[in-house]
Amino acid sequence: MIPCLTRAGIGNPGNLESFVALAGRHGFGGVDAGGDELLRLMEARGGAEGARAYLAEHGVRIGSIGLPVEWRKDEDSFRAGLARLAAHAEAAAALGCTRCCTYILPSTDEEPARYAARTARRLRTCARILAPYGLRLGLEFVGPHHLRRRWAHVFFYDLPGTLELIGDIGEPNVGLLLDSYHWYTTGGTVADLEGLRPEQIVHVHINDAKPVPVEEALDNDRLFPGEGVIDLAGFLGALQRIGYDGFVSLEVLSQSPPPAPPEEMAARAREAYRRVWPSGWPRA
Amino acid sequence: MIPCLTRAGIGNPGNLESFVALAGRHGFGGVDAGGDELLRLMEARGGAEGARAYLAEHGVRIGSIGLPVEWRKDEDSFRAGLARLAAHAEAAAALGCTRCCTYILPSTDEEPARYAARTARRLRTCARILAPYGLRLGLEFVGPHHLRRRWAHVFFYDLPGTLELIGDIGEPNVGLLLDSYHWYTTGGTVADLEGLRPEQIVHVHINDAKPVPVEEALDNDRLFPGEGVIDLAGFLGALQRIGYDGFVSLEVLSQSPPPAPPEEMAARAREAYRRVWPSGWPRA
Amino acid sequence: MIPCLTRAGIGNPGNLESFVALAGRHGFGGVDAGGDELLRLMEARGGAEGARAYLAEHGVRIGSIGLPVEWRKDEDSFRAGLARLAAHAEAAAALGCTRCCTYILPSTDEEPARYAARTARRLRTCARILAPYGLRLGLEFVGPHHLRRRWAHVFFYDLPGTLELIGDIGEPNVGLLLDSYHWYTTGGTVADLEGLRPEQIVHVHINDAKPVPVEEALDNDRLFPGEGVIDLAGFLGALQRIGYDGFVSLEVLSQSPPPAPPEEMAARAREAYRRVWPSGWPRA
Amino acid sequence: MIPCLTRAGIGNPGNLESFVALAGRHGFGGVDAGGDELLRLMEARGGAEGARAYLAEHGVRIGSIGLPVEWRKDEDSFRAGLARLAAHAEAAAALGCTRCCTYILPSTDEEPARYAARTARRLRTCARILAPYGLRLGLEFVGPHHLRRRWAHVFFYDLPGTLELIGDIGEPNVGLLLDSYHWYTTGGTVADLEGLRPEQIVHVHINDAKPVPVEEALDNDRLFPGEGVIDLAGFLGALQRIGYDGFVSLEVLSQSPPPAPPEEMAARAREAYRRVWPSGWPRA
Repeated sequence: MIPCLTRAGIGNPGNLESFVALAGRHGFGGVDAGGDELLRLMEARGGAEGARAYLAEHGVRIGSIGLPVEWRKDEDSFRAGLARLAAHAEAAAALGCTRCCTYILPSTDEEPARYAARTARRLRTCARILAPYGLRLGLEFVGPHHLRRRWAHVFFYDLPGTLELIGDIGEPNVGLLLDSYHWYTTGGTVADLEGLRPEQIVHVHINDAKPVPVEEALDNDRLFPGEGVIDLAGFLGALQRIGYDGFVSLEVLSQSPPPAPPEEMAARAREAYRRVWPSGWPRA
Repeated sequence: MIPCLTRAGIGNPGNLESFVALAGRHGFGGVDAGGDELLRLMEARGGAEGARAYLAEHGVRIGSIGLPVEWRKDEDSFRAGLARLAAHAEAAAALGCTRCCTYILPSTDEEPARYAARTARRLRTCARILAPYGLRLGLEFVGPHHLRRRWAHVFFYDLPGTLELIGDIGEPNVGLLLDSYHWYTTGGTVADLEGLRPEQIVHVHINDAKPVPVEEALDNDRLFPGEGVIDLAGFLGALQRIGYDGFVSLEVLSQSPPPAPPEEMAARAREAYRRVWPSGWPRA
Repeated sequence: MIPCLTRAGIGNPGNLESFVALAGRHGFGGVDAGGDELLRLMEARGGAEGARAYLAEHGVRIGSIGLPVEWRKDEDSFRAGLARLAAHAEAAAALGCTRCCTYILPSTDEEPARYAARTARRLRTCARILAPYGLRLGLEFVGPHHLRRRWAHVFFYDLPGTLELIGDIGEPNVGLLLDSYHWYTTGGTVADLEGLRPEQIVHVHINDAKPVPVEEALDNDRLFPGEGVIDLAGFLGALQRIGYDGFVSLEVLSQSPPPAPPEEMAARAREAYRRVWPSGWPRA
Repeated sequence: MIPCLTRAGIGNPGNLESFVALAGRHGFGGVDAGGDELLRLMEARGGAEGARAYLAEHGVRIGSIGLPVEWRKDEDSFRAGLARLAAHAEAAAALGCTRCCTYILPSTDEEPARYAARTARRLRTCARILAPYGLRLGLEFVGPHHLRRRWAHVFFYDLPGTLELIGDIGEPNVGLLLDSYHWYTTGGTVADLEGLRPEQIVHVHINDAKPVPVEEALDNDRLFPGEGVIDLAGFLGALQRIGYDGFVSLEVLSQSPPPAPPEEMAARAREAYRRVWPSGWPRA
């Protein structure tokens, strides 16, 4: 498993080059970024080769890119993103990135069966565009109770439901983005994780939860790993045992900006990973 | 379009041979039957050739067979029907039948998004088993309001939702079973039908509705075509205009048995078809 | 069926606006164009609405666009075209065009089984990118004998083989581009065409063949319809009987430029269509 | 990795119960069998539970079943096997078996492109029938040179081509059956194996080759592992390094019956495995 950073939790370290350098200074092996950032990095570094050299120099890989397609709304908006998806996938492939992720809001005002069918069809199309580039699509379920009640009907919100959605999509390159917060807020167990095959997991987020009743845990009120009540040792241990060897990204959503500059937050992130990582920080 | 009979509305005329003979006597070009009945007919007639000869002799084809798979419940029940599906499909293909149909209840006690994903996956599997036999799978939405409220959550119940489901399934051999009662109870219009391509329609049911508010129309309280308030001339006219040339089956669900023996009910069915058929009864 | 022009046979009438105007002047209802031309037309006309107005003013539609993807070579070349494919598909959809076509060379120096598998996979990917835009992919087999022998191994070259390829691809939006020259050079019959369902045909080319032994008919030595030995009345009559109502494009490949300017060649094309069209020129 | 027996090489130990007992006595953890044998075992043991108990008692699992579908010939023959495939898959699932395998002859008298497309379509159908039962389909390429030349055109015969076929089929549950003899006769390397992900491998066969020029190695003239020239330590070591943890079946095809009774051949098989197994025999 490879420690990885997102911008959520450490603040804004500037452009992708700065972000990569920061991650590298603190021993992280990956960063999550947007496809547009990858295109800009290649442009700034004189092409894919220069960008790869920059990443290699800092010992940092691109963990995943976000899905640049509006699959939740009308058909025209959806279609308008597909050319960009292909362009981002091409950039990701050129830089050795093999993962693209999106999240699924756990309730909806639309008729849920119909919305589910549309969601499956559109995400299948996205997966099929990613496939020739060797990219996998990771789907993140979102567990906090307040979001499940936010719109009229409950939608996909937990592991079993998301596996059902993935089964419906039916493409070999679609899997889970597992986030410890959502695992926790949906009552997930270590056994649930141990029941997965490693190739079902595309990407992982970690973070922690405040000591409030789980039904009251807010999506944007998370803690750094080890500061809260989630059994992260259990979470990461299970992933390691089943053979997951991908990225594990810090994603700490919060209502206010990080309390310190990115450099210090990255250092804190490193300490947080050391506390919860199964067998010590993987890079000395 | 080919007039066709089901047993719903005319009562039980006995085994498939009797049913076929009855349909032939009254000028119907098809009957809907079960796959088991097809197997028995072939056995009784010394094989597929004998069965085909019997059908030809009576001028009657097999319009469609029912889907012999329990796709609504647990996975074991689902899987237990797949071998039978292949056997029925083989029998259907041997007798020139190219349609297999199932209906979708319009509400559910399960989480609807998850149930939708499971439904799409399972019906896709069924369609894929039917495909090598040249059979298409027709999906019938069920519109009556009381059934939409019968279980906790609304599910697929109308034309747009069912088209979304078919789009999710994504197989070339899946389409609609259009039933005039469900078209009527979901506020369907002639323009809705005219917006379809003929190959999107696998099978058609006709029947009529009592002159009660549409919200009160019960699923099992239907009338013979022409005896009620549904615009069947509009319904059938639109199907003819777009080029639908498949079967149109009488399906009159009712709370009590038919008021007369099958022979007389088939004669009444013939009169009913004459009243609503776009350009006169198609066979003199 | 809608008479349609390509640039092959009438010469170069200039940009798409000129081409559309020319087609309109001579009563053709469509032109085949490249996706880049559609993008330029929209730019020149201030957007999709302006471009649609221009087409409507001339009574001309876009029959089909070419597939802008290099699917025959290495994987990088293939992937490099997919973003452009999505962009072209979006432009086509905006202008009401629903067809995208490519041709398949009938022999190859690669191992044919492996090349067939790669071809099916890549064309499937293209079809899946086209699908959300409502576009269909038409595959044209290429029949002339000299091209079947040009490379070491025979590949897909006729109707049955191309239907097998389409069956392998397995997507609902893939069908045939039928070209009368290839139908003729592969010994196609009227009965072969009558065995097709109209939705299996995405696009049609017509042209004629010199009175040489069919084995010697060269791909780039074609005649205008009615000037040669192909049974075009049989060809077009069969298409009309089965219900094909799409475009029929003139494609006359030749070794030298057309003998007259585009305006005159379009007039000759009109006369050629009048000679072979099933029931007279469709537009007075 | 789990040592497993087929009947090829040890002779006929009788019915499945005897075969399982024999495998268990000699420390093998699996046997490959036919689906019909599984059905008979369940019948003989009073159902699935009894059959599972018998297997558990002997410490033996069902490694894989053969694909009971004639996918190489006409369409009727193909379709005739699909109901049996579902029945065998159901039996396999009931007994904990998750693999079904078939082999691909490396040359053909049919047009290879067209035959490739048909092969992909039919194997996809098989995979889709296996999927709901949790079974994977393993495809074995066949490398000996004499078989590549036996029919007019070369077909799929090596690892890269078979991966292309699997990519065309496009189903998540299709992978390789890797046979050391075919790896050897196609010039496979340890690096080729190390380039695979473990989930791409469904099943493995081992055996050895006589010290003749590789072009002369006959398909049915194999040796026990360790008696010939194949680098089986390299083969098995690579599989172990990439994380393959499935069955490794002895398959020694030969022109004459085994030189000793099954009991002795199984003992010899055990010795053969001990010679080549990466880290000693896995069960004491």
